[in-house]
Amino acid sequence: MSEMADRFLRACRREPVDRTPIWIMRQAGRYLPEYRALRQRVDFLTLCRTPELAAEATLQPLRRFPLDAAILFSDILLPLQALGVEMAFTPGPTIAEPLRTRAQIDALAPRPAGEAVPFVAEAVRLLRRELDGRTPLIGFCGAPFTLACYLVQGRGKEGFGVAKTMLYREPATLEHLLSTLALAMTDYLTLQIRAGAQAVQIFDSWAGILGLEEYRRFALPYVKAIVDGVRPLGVPVIYFVNDGPHLHEAAASAGADVLGVCWRAPLDDVARRVGPRVALQGNLDPHVLFADPVEVAQQAAAVLARVAGRPGHIMNLGHGILPETPIASVEALIAAVHDFDGRRAAAAALTPCTT
Amino acid sequence: MSEMADRFLRACRREPVDRTPIWIMRQAGRYLPEYRALRQRVDFLTLCRTPELAAEATLQPLRRFPLDAAILFSDILLPLQALGVEMAFTPGPTIAEPLRTRAQIDALAPRPAGEAVPFVAEAVRLLRRELDGRTPLIGFCGAPFTLACYLVQGRGKEGFGVAKTMLYREPATLEHLLSTLALAMTDYLTLQIRAGAQAVQIFDSWAGILGLEEYRRFALPYVKAIVDGVRPLGVPVIYFVNDGPHLHEAAASAGADVLGVCWRAPLDDVARRVGPRVALQGNLDPHVLFADPVEVAQQAAAVLARVAGRPGHIMNLGHGILPETPIASVEALIAAVHDFDGRRAAAAALTPCTT
Repeated sequence: MSEMADRFLRACRREPVDRTPIWIMRQAGRYLPEYRALRQRVDFLTLCRTPELAAEATLQPLRRFPLDAAILFSDILLPLQALGVEMAFTPGPTIAEPLRTRAQIDALAPRPAGEAVPFVAEAVRLLRRELDGRTPLIGFCGAPFTLACYLVQGRGKEGFGVAKTMLYREPATLEHLLSTLALAMTDYLTLQIRAGAQAVQIFDSWAGILGLEEYRRFALPYVKAIVDGVRPLGVPVIYFVNDGPHLHEAAASAGADVLGVCWRAPLDDVARRVGPRVALQGNLDPHVLFADPVEVAQQAAAVLARVAGRPGHIMNLGHGILPETPIASVEALIAAVHDFDGRRAAAAALTPCTT
Repeated sequence: MSEMADRFLRACRREPVDRTPIWIMRQAGRYLPEYRALRQRVDFLTLCRTPELAAEATLQPLRRFPLDAAILFSDILLPLQALGVEMAFTPGPTIAEPLRTRAQIDALAPRPAGEAVPFVAEAVRLLRRELDGRTPLIGFCGAPFTLACYLVQGRGKEGFGVAKTMLYREPATLEHLLSTLALAMTDYLTLQIRAGAQAVQIFDSWAGILGLEEYRRFALPYVKAIVDGVRPLGVPVIYFVNDGPHLHEAAASAGADVLGVCWRAPLDDVARRVGPRVALQGNLDPHVLFADPVEVAQQAAAVLARVAGRPGHIMNLGHGILPETPIASVEALIAAVHDFDGRRAAAAALTPCTT
């Protein structure tokens, strides 16, 4: 892999890079006209389950933008097929039979991911051939607590009151579900890594609804189990914690190589809190991309400046890119990243004492 | 006012109290059968706009529970009538014509709150007579950024993407709206205080969607303006910041006497961050009240223990009480507060060196 192709993986490991790498959460998605055209032909689940189509969606943003990583097109709920869970996307996810009782949770008999979702491994293999070492490929899964939120609640739109009620009323039932999910997700990431994923991200989209004590009991240990489980496979692990400024220190202790954060806390504050032993990913507010390109560039530079010189920064949004985002804003963002590091490199060249 | 009646106001000012005071956000509301019975007779807006009925709803929880404060029954959007804004509750709030343009915002011509919502002052006067010095009465308003979220978006259910887009695309337009709201809310709280409200709370329910820098520019200064505006009237001001662990230090600088916080960050962490010069209100997760009474009592005691000995704690939930909450849980919560301080007082009596 060339220096350029290696930039993202080096940053994950806090190794020196020629410039800050950038990728964008949900970079394959509805803001791209070519993605919308693809979706006119097939529904979301078919797209995820057809390796050629999932690979096509994955590659679309890379044809348009000089991004430093690809991320497999899929959804965090897909591997729950291995647990026998039926779901629909309308367009938000809906679980056919929410898991509300201990009996339902005890009855879960997870199949190996390789049997339940073989199309994911196939898409990863296809993508590695297509990418041919030019751009590293990220695999992913949902964090157990976040997945449990959907499984217990049944859908996401109205919040996760039923899941939080289970947490306080039947903590042992929830813990049983979380253990089951941690094992299933370790298996699922292992499948992706063996098929060729060069890094993996664990999405904890709903961790932020937990108080710190509840997070330490119901979220963190299960993420740690996944991180420990895939560590022998040797690829970098990114742990993305959404809406979790109160969780960052604890989240950093999960042992992932990279902590991904939302836009709420300034990245230099996050860096101070978590210490130097973890790389950081983020954290531009996705709404910034609705501003004019000059403002986008300024806001992006402000994020970069907060951790300039700290080894291990991967530029990204603080949440998934929004469906109505203008393409020109994405171009301005990427140009700002290139420009910022260009200027930094130039400044370094003028300052011989800088190491 | 007796020692017992004074407990809440003394805690607001960080003065010694015989035990920690408690009130509950949305304590007059759907979890009470007598409130549901009242709502069978009248719709929500009529209830808010009829002084006798608003007073009745305010008093209902006080007849049932030994709470240390009453809070006026109303909604943060009601005073926007002073800006000529039409709204409906279905049951969530909907603004008839969302404010999306500079022209709309420039055209706002706020009337004095005393003319636009005289029924609020009348309800406060009625309540002071009914309460007769037994229980202090809290008035309230929404924080400018939170109100702007509703006014720009039009409704709350789908998030506040339009409001956040305005923030980055047309910051001056948003700032103009925020200034208008800060003045209108200062006038509105002044109306309530002059009518007899003995403390006021500013609800910043949506501040947490802002990054720290955006909060410092688009939320904090306008809250500070309100706090400064009502300070000469001499009643304690509570500033409630929801979902804002990243905002607590900044929020404490608004100058309110009390910082109210959600359940996310442990209260001792919050205390360390904000320093000793502000009282704290909160912060039990409302979902705890779905657990059995023993668990409720334990969780409540854990919150109290985190700030035991720190002057200025008002026990509360970290967010409004949920409609399905069992009455028995509220009783267990209040009993736990009484019990905790009883034990603390007993321990203090055995330890003469304690001041």
